[in-house]
Parts: sequence; structure tokens; C-alpha cells
Amino acid sequence: MTEQSLWRFSRAFHRALNERQTDDLESILDENVDWAIYGPIDMFAFLGPRHGKRAVIDVVREISGIVSLHRFDRESLMIGENSTASLMRYSLTSTTTGTPISVRIAIFAKFNAGRLINLRAIIDTFDLVEQALGRQIHLPKIA
Amino acid sequence: MTEQSLWRFSRAFHRALNERQTDDLESILDENVDWAIYGPIDMFAFLGPRHGKRAVIDVVREISGIVSLHRFDRESLMIGENSTASLMRYSLTSTTTGTPISVRIAIFAKFNAGRLINLRAIIDTFDLVEQALGRQIHLPKIA
Repeated sequence: MTEQSLWRFSRAFHRALNERQTDDLESILDENVDWAIYGPIDMFAFLGPRHGKRAVIDVVREISGIVSLHRFDRESLMIGENSTASLMRYSLTSTTTGTPISVRIAIFAKFNAGRLINLRAIIDTFDLVEQALGRQIHLPKIA
Repeated sequence: MTEQSLWRFSRAFHRALNERQTDDLESILDENVDWAIYGPIDMFAFLGPRHGKRAVIDVVREISGIVSLHRFDRESLMIGENSTASLMRYSLTSTTTGTPISVRIAIFAKFNAGRLINLRAIIDTFDLVEQALGRQIHLPKIA
């Protein structure tokens, strides 16, 4: 059941990203979905917390206007009774600059009655920022 | 079984960090453990891949010389037959500068016969870098 919910959510999310069709996504989001992709919101306004189906649909639409998804590899996957954890590698392209971006992202999702109620995503954000800037940020060696 | 392995590994890792005692850790690492904490290795040499028990013990010793661990919150946890996924929040202090650092980290661990054989960790690295620098990095608004 949860496995089926994950695949439905995954397909709906990718369809929303690439075809800008959010009807499948709407049908799998709980009205009160609690959503957060952690990262620098000053650079990427689509990061940060969102509450409720409408806000999540809106942010997925925002993301779909910025990147297109080429491929994803699921490097690790766990499926429990009501929750899933995936370690993903996404290959994206910025739709404005054409810059290719490859990022690792860990996604923890919880479902209730077949609907997504909670999502937390951790990204290797420094790598994401450097790729989006198209240059390295100089860092002191700390340790 | 896997649950027990996770707690053993977790205790051993925290003991290695805070008491610099690595004997418990040695007993739970597989000889050929495959380990990677993704992030900017130019700034933090303890990030990146490590192969084998000796290399992992060495890198945990390195980390223990740099930070002390105050508390950790497990925000999400999944336990499967041979694998676990944890969404953690660590509160650390830099032992050199005294800077407090709070980071989210997703840890995917695989066990075999009670020993850790694979670990992958994703950190919100931009947040980590800014906290370690003690200042914000100016970013253009991209999206």
C-alpha cells in the first residue's frame, strides 16, 4: 500500500515537473500535507517549508518552471508500513541557463490512507549552490 | 537484529566522537565497510568516501578531534531487514573555535551479520559551511 503510494507520488511529482500536469499530484497530496526541503531560501525561493496541498502544488509548479528532470537514480530505498526513505540522484537542467545540475537528495515521506502527509528532503546544498552558480566558492580549509 | 545493530553502531559512533574510544566502533564495522559522507572536502577533509574499517576508524577519530556532540534528535527513522534510514539533527561544537553548529543529516546504513557494511550520509552542507565560517555567504537570487 505504502509502496504503491510512493510510486504514485513519484510518478505524479515527475509528471508535474516535466509536463506541468499537477492533477495526479493533487490527488495524492493530503489537504494538510507538511512539506520541507531544507536549503538556502535566499537563493532558491522554492526551498523551505510549505503547509497544505495548495502551497505544495504551487511550489512544485515553481520548481517545474526552473528545472527539467532528465533522469533519476534511486541509490537506496526503504519502504515501511506508512513511510518511505529514498536516497535519490537527480539529473536536472536549468530551463533558464541550460546548466546541467546533478544533486543527491534524501527524501523521507509519510503517507496516510494513500495520501502524502509529510515530506522532508535533505540536499547536499553546497554542491547544488556551486552548480547553480556555475563556479566554485572558495572555502578555507577548516579541518 | 538490524535495529539492535543500529543502536550498537549509534552508541559506538557517539562514544568514539565524545570519548575518543573506538573499540566499540571497531567491533561493529565490517572489514570492507563502504562509507561516504557527501560534502565539500576542500573545507572538511573528513568528508568524502572511505573504504575499509581502518579508514573509517581514522576518519571518525579525525571528526572527534574537530567537534564534540551535545545532542542529537532522530526526526525520522526507518528500520528494514538489513538496512536503516535516519533523519538526524546533530548539535555540535567546534573544539577549536567553540562555534555551535546544528546540522540536519540523512544517514542510510546497511548491515550484514550485525556489522555495518555501507553508509551514505547527506548533509544540508550549505548550512554547515555557513555555520562553520561563522558568516553568511552572499548568494544571488536564482529562482
